[in-house]
Amino acid sequence: MISVRVNDAEFEGALMPNTEANADDAIIIKMGSGYNIAFKFSEVKILKKDTKKKTIQFPQAKSQNNLSLPKISLLYTGGTIGSKVDYMTGGVYMLTKPEELLYEVPEMSDIANLRVKDLFSIPSEDMSCVEWSELAKSVAKELNGGARGAVVSMGTDTMHYASAALSFMLGGLNSPVVMTGAQRSSDRGSSDAFMNLFCATAVAAKSDIAEVSICMHATSSDDYCNITRGTKARKMHSSRRDAFRPINDKPIARVGRTGEINYLSQYRKMERATNKINPVTGFEKRTAMVIAHPNSDPSIIDFFAEKGYRGIIIEGTGLGHTPVSTKHEGQSWLENIRRAVDTGIVIGITTQCIYGRTNKSVYRNLRLLNKAGAIHCEDMTPETAYVKLGWLLGNYGREEASAMFAKNLRGEIKERTEYSTFLV
Amino acid sequence: MISVRVNDAEFEGALMPNTEANADDAIIIKMGSGYNIAFKFSEVKILKKDTKKKTIQFPQAKSQNNLSLPKISLLYTGGTIGSKVDYMTGGVYMLTKPEELLYEVPEMSDIANLRVKDLFSIPSEDMSCVEWSELAKSVAKELNGGARGAVVSMGTDTMHYASAALSFMLGGLNSPVVMTGAQRSSDRGSSDAFMNLFCATAVAAKSDIAEVSICMHATSSDDYCNITRGTKARKMHSSRRDAFRPINDKPIARVGRTGEINYLSQYRKMERATNKINPVTGFEKRTAMVIAHPNSDPSIIDFFAEKGYRGIIIEGTGLGHTPVSTKHEGQSWLENIRRAVDTGIVIGITTQCIYGRTNKSVYRNLRLLNKAGAIHCEDMTPETAYVKLGWLLGNYGREEASAMFAKNLRGEIKERTEYSTFLV
Repeated sequence: MISVRVNDAEFEGALMPNTEANADDAIIIKMGSGYNIAFKFSEVKILKKDTKKKTIQFPQAKSQNNLSLPKISLLYTGGTIGSKVDYMTGGVYMLTKPEELLYEVPEMSDIANLRVKDLFSIPSEDMSCVEWSELAKSVAKELNGGARGAVVSMGTDTMHYASAALSFMLGGLNSPVVMTGAQRSSDRGSSDAFMNLFCATAVAAKSDIAEVSICMHATSSDDYCNITRGTKARKMHSSRRDAFRPINDKPIARVGRTGEINYLSQYRKMERATNKINPVTGFEKRTAMVIAHPNSDPSIIDFFAEKGYRGIIIEGTGLGHTPVSTKHEGQSWLENIRRAVDTGIVIGITTQCIYGRTNKSVYRNLRLLNKAGAIHCEDMTPETAYVKLGWLLGNYGREEASAMFAKNLRGEIKERTEYSTFLV
Repeated sequence: MISVRVNDAEFEGALMPNTEANADDAIIIKMGSGYNIAFKFSEVKILKKDTKKKTIQFPQAKSQNNLSLPKISLLYTGGTIGSKVDYMTGGVYMLTKPEELLYEVPEMSDIANLRVKDLFSIPSEDMSCVEWSELAKSVAKELNGGARGAVVSMGTDTMHYASAALSFMLGGLNSPVVMTGAQRSSDRGSSDAFMNLFCATAVAAKSDIAEVSICMHATSSDDYCNITRGTKARKMHSSRRDAFRPINDKPIARVGRTGEINYLSQYRKMERATNKINPVTGFEKRTAMVIAHPNSDPSIIDFFAEKGYRGIIIEGTGLGHTPVSTKHEGQSWLENIRRAVDTGIVIGITTQCIYGRTNKSVYRNLRLLNKAGAIHCEDMTPETAYVKLGWLLGNYGREEASAMFAKNLRGEIKERTEYSTFLV
């Protein structure tokens, strides 16, 4: 606690850490109101300091050992769901123990016998295919070890990439694997962490959805969560709690606040016979995503080809176009794509519209791209197409990967795009 | 017309051109039902050919010279709105004269004295900043020459890039400039061409919206069109007629089938005093868009830097993240961004979520990116941020461009994102 005088006024509050990215000469004080106020160091006269530390008390968690309940493994990886604002400092810190999350949701112990696995503690933008592979192995280990289902908590930024990765890596799944996270850290009044976690646990414990799915708020209120197929989900808003949306697909189910599940569309169902999962966890890092936009430089294809890349997903315009007739400093998308395909690189084209299908024949330019060897990705999102291609190239030969890429493997390609799946 | 025998069956219809991208050994016949049927050439026995050509009769357009009506210039550039299916061949061809479009909308001559300018005839994926500049000059010429407003028709794939470009190039606008197009070619029963064109003309002739806007179907029925700000629009579906959506913004207005305009939000209004427009039409082609995704290779920044690029827009995750702590083969996004900024490259970060704002301070990784010199793009779409940066660097020095980039110039940055602007 600190008291200061600035000009004629006095201010009292908690001295905040001056994070490295802020101005170096600022003093920041968190006032009783909760607001921060900042002054130039040179303008401030310090009146009083009190360096006693406060400690934070967590409530006790209820016992998690009710053996009559389904065994669910919660795999914890970090992200906003595992962060709290430190009211002493105003900074966001990671939970020391993921179990702390459970202290706030005592209802969880009524629906599942939870076992927490603390895997990593990283923000999702720093998660790569290395973590996806580890996560897939850990999920398989838990399920093969007797867990009825798994809940994976992670940061939301790249959750739809990770859910696609787990979908492909965990073939032959016979259990619900439900990913969840939070758009608001878990100690804020508006946090979505607990409802998301509770609903995800309910789906893992009670549903027969043998797919990798994402469980996040369906609306901006705490009404219910959507369960969205891991290969058809996308974070569509940078901050809203209902940011995750099915793309060219309906949600599989809705889950209410009390854990009741309403099924909305078809899904892969659990079968009675149990089987062991053998995760296929390779991933070809030399897979790229590029944007074909007006004035875009087709030599980006050569750049990746020269670096030894084996797959490229192009976010095309509309039905899956690149510029075709126009050249950029003598470079042509069509020629560069043809040359790259001829050297064995797999090239997929998605649509930057996000919603809707690509097409390989409606317009002449589309047919030319197709003839050059590019594969139009039907109704896959760019992110799922990227993850699918990286996964295929990491585990299969070029020919096989290319053939599998155009086929539906985990619900990522639908034969028809339902009209009602736009902007829902 | 051709008759063929295949095995025991006979087929009769119009012989279709075998486009270069199709199989070389196929014969394609359009049947009386309208469906195409294809056979291998080797399996077909030709029974009869009739090579007489049919000619297509166009109805007469009504006179467009009612001098009491507002003068509106229609600038035609090609795209689906200007294409027709040739029922002799089944191929899509461009109109020989854009005036043909008007034959189908006689109501247009009741609201405007239209003058058609035939600029280009290219699909929008092949349109570059060269055409944007020409278009801006042509619009300015028409408006300076006495037109009350301008309608620009073009292909839809890159219309939102072009609308942003015209918005920036046409500063000090005192007239409506309304862009429109079609998702279905103009001779199909489901074509949106005519209603879009009529509504766009109504806005150009009657509204006081002194902005560049996009006029396209607001719903999948022919109910009304949305008028969306040129810097806040995005094609969000590859094929639906209501594909164009405002992003982090409301539509400016709705226009009904009979041309009535309902204003929905604030906009720049026409002023009584007329002024001449001086379009600022430079564009720096050495501006790139890249995607920061899991496993993405930060050396893409160096690739563009070495090619002399002066600006890069990064589509980050969530609030505007790149991977920060993870390295890709020794390369770091943070270090590469810092180095590029130090050499004078302007780097902006948008969100690949599409909806929502970026933020430069909520998380430590965001602050690090900001400290490295990257500019978080507030609530600009990636496409508008790209066009804005290319336009600024094409017309202003680095310092000025960088300072202007962070400021709102044409409604592309809103101070607050209204909650109700998500997925509308």
